Amino acid sequence: MQGRVDGWIDQFEEGYFPPAIIMLRLAEEVGELAREINHRFGMKPKRPDEAEGSVEIELGDCLFVLISLANSLDIRLDDAFMAVMEKFQTRDADRWTRKHS
Amino acid sequence: MQGRVDGWIDQFEEGYFPPAIIMLRLAEEVGELAREINHRFGMKPKRPDEAEGSVEIELGDCLFVLISLANSLDIRLDDAFMAVMEKFQTRDADRWTRKHS
Amino acid sequence: MQGRVDGWIDQFEEGYFPPAIIMLRLAEEVGELAREINHRFGMKPKRPDEAEGSVEIELGDCLFVLISLANSLDIRLDDAFMAVMEKFQTRDADRWTRKHS
Amino acid sequence: MQGRVDGWIDQFEEGYFPPAIIMLRLAEEVGELAREINHRFGMKPKRPDEAEGSVEIELGDCLFVLISLANSLDIRLDDAFMAVMEKFQTRDADRWTRKHS
Repeated sequence: MQGRVDGWIDQFEEGYFPPAIIMLRLAEEVGELAREINHRFGMKPKRPDEAEGSVEIELGDCLFVLISLANSLDIRLDDAFMAVMEKFQTRDADRWTRKHS
Repeated sequence: MQGRVDGWIDQFEEGYFPPAIIMLRLAEEVGELAREINHRFGMKPKRPDEAEGSVEIELGDCLFVLISLANSLDIRLDDAFMAVMEKFQTRDADRWTRKHS
Repeated sequence: MQGRVDGWIDQFEEGYFPPAIIMLRLAEEVGELAREINHRFGMKPKRPDEAEGSVEIELGDCLFVLISLANSLDIRLDDAFMAVMEKFQTRDADRWTRKHS
Repeated sequence: MQGRVDGWIDQFEEGYFPPAIIMLRLAEEVGELAREINHRFGMKPKRPDEAEGSVEIELGDCLFVLISLANSLDIRLDDAFMAVMEKFQTRDADRWTRKHS
């Protein structure tokens, strides 16, 4: 996915935006995801003039922006993911209730 | 402002939403504010079909949601503001560069 | 409150940050508020090494950042609030269920 | 990655949280990412008592929460990503400046 995003952005003169600007985009997309989640699983009915949205698309938009940020900073999300799983296995090992086998 | 928001919400059967749901609304409004800020001061041009927005309105929406959350939790924003200014004057007194008099 | 924030920031050489940078601060403070709300009203227990927080302080921090952004853009939050209440009274008048008198 | 997150969460009685609660976690992690980005590429120096952070870890945390939300809603992120790339290729094809070949 990181390669596909890079191929897409590489077509354009603008290239990657600075990190602070990509974060604005992330806030925007997380907000749209929050609206869809609230609409479907929360308590905010849409007005008749509001478009029907899609949680899948909003999730995909958030993922795209995360990938763009990672690409622009030369961070491999595989590594980031591994580091986080490692952290959970140590730091959070006792945070939750283990199922009995 | 807290009284006016309370008067508005008190008209409706739904009343205040639970805190987690108000937070979804806050994320949504902060996202819309981020979009306007990016459009005006950042680097994201709008498509022709995207409505012209207003930073003032988006700021007002964020403020409204913050007030709703405070009201729903019986928190006085005057007190919260005072507590934060107090914190800055102690904790952050040396964080920034004081102007020479 | 806008005057008090202005007085605080006016002491320092740095002054107001650019809008995109203030938005990063807002995202940070909204995130801290979300953590407190989740801790108190949601489902995320804190680890023993995590500091006890305060919803009031986190609300105050969000308010402070909103005020800073408004100040830096010469927006009066009184006007923004009025504009939003006006919008609700027209656009959202039928969104919620009115109480019977 | 979705399988590994599922394997991790499946060990615990708590399982996946409701969507609104996962969104609170996302707001929290996006806020921590914003803080790191501001610290490294923006204008917010850390106080001496603030821990040195890692953009990689914060990106990984955001990714983990997005994956958890997707898993909990039976959404395949591959599909979401494809849908978003498809949307860009149609809707945003003329938004940016194509490089001359």
